[in-house]
Amino acid sequence: MRNVSDTVRRRHFAEMREMMKFYLPTKVFQEKDAVKRHSAQMAHFGKKALIVTGGSSSKKNGALQDVTDGLDLHHTAYVIFDKIKENPSVDSIMEAAEFGRKEGADFVIGVGGGSPLDAAKAIALMLQNRDSSKEVLYQKVELRYLPVVAVPTTCGTGSEVTPYAILTREDIQTKQSISHMIFPELALVDGKYIEKAPLSLLVNTAVDALGHMIESYFHSDATDYSRMLCQYAMEVWGMAADVLFGIDAKDGDYERLMFASSLAGMAIAQTGTSLPHGLSYYLTYHKGIPHGKAVGVFLAGYLSALPENYEPQVIMALRTLGFGSLEQFEGALKELLGIVELSGEETEEMIDEMMQNEKKLLAAPFEVTRKTFQEMCRMVAQK
Amino acid sequence: MRNVSDTVRRRHFAEMREMMKFYLPTKVFQEKDAVKRHSAQMAHFGKKALIVTGGSSSKKNGALQDVTDGLDLHHTAYVIFDKIKENPSVDSIMEAAEFGRKEGADFVIGVGGGSPLDAAKAIALMLQNRDSSKEVLYQKVELRYLPVVAVPTTCGTGSEVTPYAILTREDIQTKQSISHMIFPELALVDGKYIEKAPLSLLVNTAVDALGHMIESYFHSDATDYSRMLCQYAMEVWGMAADVLFGIDAKDGDYERLMFASSLAGMAIAQTGTSLPHGLSYYLTYHKGIPHGKAVGVFLAGYLSALPENYEPQVIMALRTLGFGSLEQFEGALKELLGIVELSGEETEEMIDEMMQNEKKLLAAPFEVTRKTFQEMCRMVAQK
Repeated sequence: MRNVSDTVRRRHFAEMREMMKFYLPTKVFQEKDAVKRHSAQMAHFGKKALIVTGGSSSKKNGALQDVTDGLDLHHTAYVIFDKIKENPSVDSIMEAAEFGRKEGADFVIGVGGGSPLDAAKAIALMLQNRDSSKEVLYQKVELRYLPVVAVPTTCGTGSEVTPYAILTREDIQTKQSISHMIFPELALVDGKYIEKAPLSLLVNTAVDALGHMIESYFHSDATDYSRMLCQYAMEVWGMAADVLFGIDAKDGDYERLMFASSLAGMAIAQTGTSLPHGLSYYLTYHKGIPHGKAVGVFLAGYLSALPENYEPQVIMALRTLGFGSLEQFEGALKELLGIVELSGEETEEMIDEMMQNEKKLLAAPFEVTRKTFQEMCRMVAQK
Repeated sequence: MRNVSDTVRRRHFAEMREMMKFYLPTKVFQEKDAVKRHSAQMAHFGKKALIVTGGSSSKKNGALQDVTDGLDLHHTAYVIFDKIKENPSVDSIMEAAEFGRKEGADFVIGVGGGSPLDAAKAIALMLQNRDSSKEVLYQKVELRYLPVVAVPTTCGTGSEVTPYAILTREDIQTKQSISHMIFPELALVDGKYIEKAPLSLLVNTAVDALGHMIESYFHSDATDYSRMLCQYAMEVWGMAADVLFGIDAKDGDYERLMFASSLAGMAIAQTGTSLPHGLSYYLTYHKGIPHGKAVGVFLAGYLSALPENYEPQVIMALRTLGFGSLEQFEGALKELLGIVELSGEETEEMIDEMMQNEKKLLAAPFEVTRKTFQEMCRMVAQK
């Protein structure tokens, strides 16, 4: 017979949700020199790669060089589109796709943070559907797309293992994921790319990953599959997070931050994000606030807005992350991010928009009112 | 600042392994009436399905009816091959493939325990490569295969989410996975199929899943990805395992056993199995002992054979499963499975075979000697 030892604490709720789904078709390698070691796989998705990246960081951190070396080694041709900006616009996608089309690219490699990775997916779609106009990005039609390889160089996006591609839509003045679910075929993850990153970049992206964990964990579509990913992500993040506070990295900490980011990406691939990401798009679009900070300022408020019956899970999640209380968590976020200033009018406008965003409202596992959003704004100062 | 609360015990080792891989392309739905709810997806892999199943259990538990109802609903034709026996032979694969070929099947649905599910994968390979002889099953050549849908009706195999297909090879007198990695496209998992299963079937299959967790967790290819899956599987298994000891099921226990089995399958999809599975093939092939029991009698011995530095992890794993000590674990396995009797000669022959099995020897995260296997035989009585 067994006697379940009560020293085994069932840390999180392992209720069986009635409907559970798991889907994550991307092949992931995380290791030192991942691009080099798996360059054969990367190079064999086609005859000519369109490399999609930003203006400078993938050159500085060595990722772009690793990718082109790997393609050269296997005699695969490539062209580079390095004009992806933060929060890429639909128009920049069309420009890159047009470039890739002229060059005859038959697969896409995204190198960088969330912006190039998300852009790579949208470009892969437009390249395959060369006669379509940009409207198809946001139409619910079934379309094919070229293979995508993702090489992340920040520890926040998780885009290398999600099907999402968030673009800036000037037409409706916000950021929004395209209507197509495009998982990369291959994700090559290497902690070395963030070793020399500025602290502000680490903070901004690791807080984005933190948002993914918290929003997915407390999500109306959470299942034991997604919670498993969140729990593990929180644990790994918690082991490495001292780095964000300026403490010297322990051996493996950069790899842990990358790993936590991928795990959190796998979690939101199952559930999507929730209210903090929804609110963040306003701050980024209208105020130019970087994505990680724009998410992070709402995280303590989101936990605080959860109904009382979530309290044990909130405490458990915070402890897994390495925080003793919600107050301590909020203090740490303030230390990392500072606060955001909005006028009363802007705050109202932001909340108005969210009250219309049915998808995000349904993502919260409780009834959302204007009061919910007011509570979430505790790191937003009235200006 | 954070202060990591020491009430947060880092339960398992979260070292960053140098090389980590995650790949699991199967789309999984676990829920009540999964086949019915997702029949459109199941039915649209082709024009005519070859349903591969055993002689009786999938008829009794309703799974076969659910599958044919789902195909009928979407006007997809099908034929049924219901002659898959336990530990299917290569010849039975060829017979089923020949049948499917004559009938013009263009995808395969496996319904049942590990045997029909594994068979379905091998049949999908032989159907696609219709002019090949059975030798290709065990040749390292790259071949395409038809889409496979898996509907498990036991809580042990995990085959619905693994790329493995274990067949009985009369030519070399053992069981062995084919040389091709064939993940099902779709896994439809429903706890209701085991609700009325005989206790002996639950025990035999849940102990197989237990073997997957333990062998994957203590495997030379284990990474934080595979350990995450094992830890969660152990926790879920531990919550439901009272059922195996004849205690009335709590709400959700059958679903938990199925879920634990799928999670454990996902883990071995990353690592493979280890010594207990290796030894089990001898017992099953030569002595006709059911797979779960043949694995289970070696599990306590495997944990005991691990080097001393694994002790904290062994204790943690056992506690997560609901056992206070290795002795208690061994006692529980004896209660569930009884013991196995072999002559001294048979034991030596079994160990001789394993000492030649390089792949399994390398799967153990320590140096394996004959003494290791002797220690693992503590539930094998000399006859």
